[in-house]
Amino acid sequence: MSTEAKTPETKAKLQLDTVDHVAVSVKNVQETVEWYSKNFDCTVKYQDETWGLVEFANIRLAFVLPEQHPPHFALLGDPAKYGEPKTHRDGTRSVYVKDPSGNNIEILALK
Amino acid sequence: MSTEAKTPETKAKLQLDTVDHVAVSVKNVQETVEWYSKNFDCTVKYQDETWGLVEFANIRLAFVLPEQHPPHFALLGDPAKYGEPKTHRDGTRSVYVKDPSGNNIEILALK
Repeated sequence: MSTEAKTPETKAKLQLDTVDHVAVSVKNVQETVEWYSKNFDCTVKYQDETWGLVEFANIRLAFVLPEQHPPHFALLGDPAKYGEPKTHRDGTRSVYVKDPSGNNIEILALK
Repeated sequence: MSTEAKTPETKAKLQLDTVDHVAVSVKNVQETVEWYSKNFDCTVKYQDETWGLVEFANIRLAFVLPEQHPPHFALLGDPAKYGEPKTHRDGTRSVYVKDPSGNNIEILALK
């Protein structure tokens, strides 16, 4: 039997956290970027041999090789709340945490 | 060596497709919904024993049991372009397709 959430929260959308990107494991970055570009309306933001980034209207998809990056999604927030942030080449900072099922969540602070 | 996309597309954001939700496999829906609600600013839209739906500022996350739904993400579009749509209880229609790496994409038409 379904039960609607008993304590519905009514936060305005502006108060909610933002999912910056979802990283999806792929076998071949170039093939994947071409396939998504052909089938959907999206913009290629970056690609090299090891990963690609494609922008949709509301979110970005990152295509990653599983040996380079784990599948994950990234939430904008303060990574220092969760550990020692790693600073990336582009100046962003992040920490990875796991949800109770072991899914990887990157807590990401933009510059 | 990185190579920026050679033919950058400059579609306006309004022209881009929208990712409606990302479905993440979890072990226990209630535990997961509680964990995300405690750690992040998000709104619980639905939950029962078999799946949950949590809204962030720009996208919704669905928490699914792997034996009930495959992990996937959903793009708003016309499912009939891809096959025979299945009509769901809430009136939405969708078709599942796979990208070249076997990732599941739900092409979803809202009511």
